[in-house]
Amino acid sequence: MSVLAVSASASAAPVQVSDLLAKAPAADWRPIDPENTLYMDLPAGRVVIELAPAFAPNHVANIKALVRSGYFDDSAIVRVQDNYVAQWSAPEDRKITAGHDTLKAEFDKPIGPEPFVPLRDPDTYAPLVGFSGDFPAARDPKTNRTWLTHCYGMVGAGRDDGADTGGGKELYAVIGQSPRNLDRNVTLVGRVVQGMDLLSSLPRGPGDMGFYTKEGDKTVIRRVRVAADVPAAERLPLEALRTDSSTFKALVQSRRFRKEGWYKYSPGRIGVCNVPLPVRLKP
Amino acid sequence: MSVLAVSASASAAPVQVSDLLAKAPAADWRPIDPENTLYMDLPAGRVVIELAPAFAPNHVANIKALVRSGYFDDSAIVRVQDNYVAQWSAPEDRKITAGHDTLKAEFDKPIGPEPFVPLRDPDTYAPLVGFSGDFPAARDPKTNRTWLTHCYGMVGAGRDDGADTGGGKELYAVIGQSPRNLDRNVTLVGRVVQGMDLLSSLPRGPGDMGFYTKEGDKTVIRRVRVAADVPAAERLPLEALRTDSSTFKALVQSRRFRKEGWYKYSPGRIGVCNVPLPVRLKP
Repeated sequence: MSVLAVSASASAAPVQVSDLLAKAPAADWRPIDPENTLYMDLPAGRVVIELAPAFAPNHVANIKALVRSGYFDDSAIVRVQDNYVAQWSAPEDRKITAGHDTLKAEFDKPIGPEPFVPLRDPDTYAPLVGFSGDFPAARDPKTNRTWLTHCYGMVGAGRDDGADTGGGKELYAVIGQSPRNLDRNVTLVGRVVQGMDLLSSLPRGPGDMGFYTKEGDKTVIRRVRVAADVPAAERLPLEALRTDSSTFKALVQSRRFRKEGWYKYSPGRIGVCNVPLPVRLKP
Repeated sequence: MSVLAVSASASAAPVQVSDLLAKAPAADWRPIDPENTLYMDLPAGRVVIELAPAFAPNHVANIKALVRSGYFDDSAIVRVQDNYVAQWSAPEDRKITAGHDTLKAEFDKPIGPEPFVPLRDPDTYAPLVGFSGDFPAARDPKTNRTWLTHCYGMVGAGRDDGADTGGGKELYAVIGQSPRNLDRNVTLVGRVVQGMDLLSSLPRGPGDMGFYTKEGDKTVIRRVRVAADVPAAERLPLEALRTDSSTFKALVQSRRFRKEGWYKYSPGRIGVCNVPLPVRLKP
């Protein structure tokens, strides 16, 4: 049976990436901090989200406060728009008992001491792209600003028209072509590091912008927990490949210049949202 | 209920795009040629594919010959890899009764008289991108070559390691971040113009590269027909917005510079795979 190609996606690592990862020293992997990890349990399985406090400290703190108060338990995926986002929230009449209803936007921030591994490839949307804390990110050296980028699997905080109307009560994950027009317009709070397919394969909502129109069509979110609150023995020991590692550097190069016999042409370049960001269970 | 944003996707046109399209003169729409249209019927509904004979004349002719011989009837979606592709083919033991088993690759071609509407935004992968025959495309003026680009919804012909081992018996549609590394490595034969969500929301296959491991998990393709072979009264009168129209120009500009109050920042640029390519039923 003919196959198309090995994949450039993180979710199903192709042979060459697997080989690189198998050879990576343990130090090239970063344990994902349970204090910044969410377990979101759907009937079909678990979605794991790594939060990004370096870019959205207030939103991350707020989301954890909401999670710890049980705010997202028995909530639902309320919107799935094809080639765009899957979005979830609690029922509209649910009151918050911890945290804030809304927060000041954290769309971008001054370039600071946070790590940044630049990608030396041109980008349509930003002067400079790369990886910061192993999240896809961008920088504008002229204005001294940095922000996370809307790549596949990134999680953001929905909002109304006002910039400061988000806060984390309504969250979404990118399930299609990177909607980079949203960069600096939404507070990105993290990314899905496991179970992405549970969101991306949901039936698209029939309503405007992919909202479900019948309560029964929504996918229930049974509960959401901060991984640190789960007994240690029940936690998933996830590790992310460090983007400042030599393994990651080799990985990016192997995706720019494809050496597999299947490839007849190699662009010599890669987009920031096409770079795999491998995550594994600690061996 | 707070919503994330209006969409940049073609599949669920946001208000501003709808407004532009509602005002478009009839001449800004191009009827999609039934002779270059496939109806692929899944249990959940119909996927409609517009073929691209200007870029892949031999593959398109071959696919139509295969379709007309019933080759794809009672075939199946055999692979769905998250953030990558949904792929389909007939059972391995099925013999072809029309057309060719394999064909010479049609990865790219000399720049010729085909239309090309350039997009004046930088692209990571190609020297010049734009739209040709209302398909996303790229050009390299230095080498005088042009090719279609792997954007969401594009359909290509799977192949083995040899460049000339494809031909159209195995086809795939892009369901995630544009895998532009496949450009010039696969013969792109068209794009999904309706029913994309029927492919993108399929359960991901549990096997290597998203292949299904159990026959019963595959989605059946009941039949595939060339629209021209369907009685005229049963055809879908689909029209594509002409990418050389003033409406399309305004649409691209409206996506580069977002005027909606929701947007706080506008990049002033757009990626070739982020441009909506609207399709409608003729009013």
